[in-house]
Amino acid sequence: MAYTINELLKSINEQTNKLDITGEPKELYLPVEYCIKNGGKRIRPLMTLIACDMFGGNIDQAMPSAIGIEIFHNFTLMHDDIMDNAPMRRGKPAVHKKWNSNTAILSGDVMFAIAYQYMLKTPEKKLKRVLEVFNETVIQICEGQQYDMNFETLNNVSEAEYLNMIRLKTAVLPANSLKIGAIIANAPENEINNLYLFGELFGLAFQLKDDWLDIFGDEDVFGKKTGGDIVANKKTWLYIKAFELANKNQLKTLNEAFNNKTVHPKEKINTVKNIYLQLELNKLAIEQMNKYYKRAQDYLNKIKIPEESKSNLSHLLKMLVERKF
Amino acid sequence: MAYTINELLKSINEQTNKLDITGEPKELYLPVEYCIKNGGKRIRPLMTLIACDMFGGNIDQAMPSAIGIEIFHNFTLMHDDIMDNAPMRRGKPAVHKKWNSNTAILSGDVMFAIAYQYMLKTPEKKLKRVLEVFNETVIQICEGQQYDMNFETLNNVSEAEYLNMIRLKTAVLPANSLKIGAIIANAPENEINNLYLFGELFGLAFQLKDDWLDIFGDEDVFGKKTGGDIVANKKTWLYIKAFELANKNQLKTLNEAFNNKTVHPKEKINTVKNIYLQLELNKLAIEQMNKYYKRAQDYLNKIKIPEESKSNLSHLLKMLVERKF
Repeated sequence: MAYTINELLKSINEQTNKLDITGEPKELYLPVEYCIKNGGKRIRPLMTLIACDMFGGNIDQAMPSAIGIEIFHNFTLMHDDIMDNAPMRRGKPAVHKKWNSNTAILSGDVMFAIAYQYMLKTPEKKLKRVLEVFNETVIQICEGQQYDMNFETLNNVSEAEYLNMIRLKTAVLPANSLKIGAIIANAPENEINNLYLFGELFGLAFQLKDDWLDIFGDEDVFGKKTGGDIVANKKTWLYIKAFELANKNQLKTLNEAFNNKTVHPKEKINTVKNIYLQLELNKLAIEQMNKYYKRAQDYLNKIKIPEESKSNLSHLLKMLVERKF
Repeated sequence: MAYTINELLKSINEQTNKLDITGEPKELYLPVEYCIKNGGKRIRPLMTLIACDMFGGNIDQAMPSAIGIEIFHNFTLMHDDIMDNAPMRRGKPAVHKKWNSNTAILSGDVMFAIAYQYMLKTPEKKLKRVLEVFNETVIQICEGQQYDMNFETLNNVSEAEYLNMIRLKTAVLPANSLKIGAIIANAPENEINNLYLFGELFGLAFQLKDDWLDIFGDEDVFGKKTGGDIVANKKTWLYIKAFELANKNQLKTLNEAFNNKTVHPKEKINTVKNIYLQLELNKLAIEQMNKYYKRAQDYLNKIKIPEESKSNLSHLLKMLVERKF
């Protein structure tokens, strides 16, 4: 392991800041630049570089695919925000709001192609495999997003269905971000597989923490209002568990809150959050996240490289479960 | 040259008919199947196979990229129809009308990824180059579509600007469809280049004929109402030339017709078509198309392979200029 997390993040940010996306027509490329350079945690490209580095690979060889993955991730956000009619992204107007839907569709499409341009800079010996992994990821994310949209109009979504949706929509990308870094570093197949499974669990834990923060986060630290998922009737783990665990009265209250379209958002949030607390979902969600955390750690323990080489990934996982925003 | 056009088309249609796009969630994949299996002339994949075949390549090696190109082309139609708010495609409701915009966005995205899946089946020796050509094409098509959308709100579009837009949006894909087939067949670089330039001119001629048919086509043969481009104020070669050649009175009539939002479509079409005929644009457009046709033929003549090996491409070009729908 040759680099610290901060060094890797610094390299990624240098790369994304100097990305040249200033072509013509500017109506196409300005939204791309706006989207990519508007921050974000850069977790996925970081995972690609960490995975490459921990198996002794040359991170310069993994950098193009890391950047490609980040551009691709931002493309999915741009299209998802249209579909979810989400007005804001990272504290700024989403592209479809700042410009319009057509702009967000087409600038998203070109971002997708730009992402592939970066993936194509992968060393030729690894190119086909890396592209196959990447492409499969893209397809799974589309499937996940479709399930998520389907769930909007369904009343009954099981925990298993929910987890499969989240796996596809959220967990496969970090898992394959790691995998791609490990492939480029010539890691052994069984270790690539362990890393993939670590990444999936990482993704599930990440999403659970996201859902928890949306309801129970400290608004001052979280940086935005809590309760957005409740207002939007979003099928989260908390939502699904609440319906599973609620008694008759609680069920009635939940149904009324989620189906009453005239209730004030503040009141709706309070009502639902209150039931969540009665059911101790604030604790159960953290327990569940810790299960994923431990299982992820188990896969990391299996990997036969010096412990110190795993410390970046171990540290990233810890930062994730402890994060407050 | 081992195959006739009909044999190649038959193979393409066999492949597209047996495409397995029946995965889950079906809300994602049904629109993909609907779109791909709803016909189309299959000209672009045909060009890939013809190019491969004419240089003695194995068409089985070019088939996956041919299919990938066709899937990609259909993806662009699915997204373009949202952006252009076009209700129909090949005589059936467009995906965003039959389902909704979100479906057309996401099913389009997954089609884009499926297209890459097919491109990835290109023989490994040629893979990187073919993907680079393909990816560059995707980006150029996005740029062309953006210029086309920009033109909607511009009053003055020069012929040069128009031709650049059409080159990007329409001509680069047939040009690179040929190029990809020739690359797979190991054609010499200078011949690949001649073929590309042939393809670009083919594309320009194709678009001009499209525009001509939209106004001057025989409705019974054309299969749809003529004049759609006039009703939509679309900046076509005919539109741009009309404003260039019109005298003061004709200019006034054109401006009135295109800016009057209350006039009946039928009347608008008649008024504009009448001016086009006064300016002899029906003939000028065909003359212009024939110029492209001859220049394309010149590039084909330059290619140093037996004349009989060129006959498919020569025949395709001829079919194009003579087509009535």
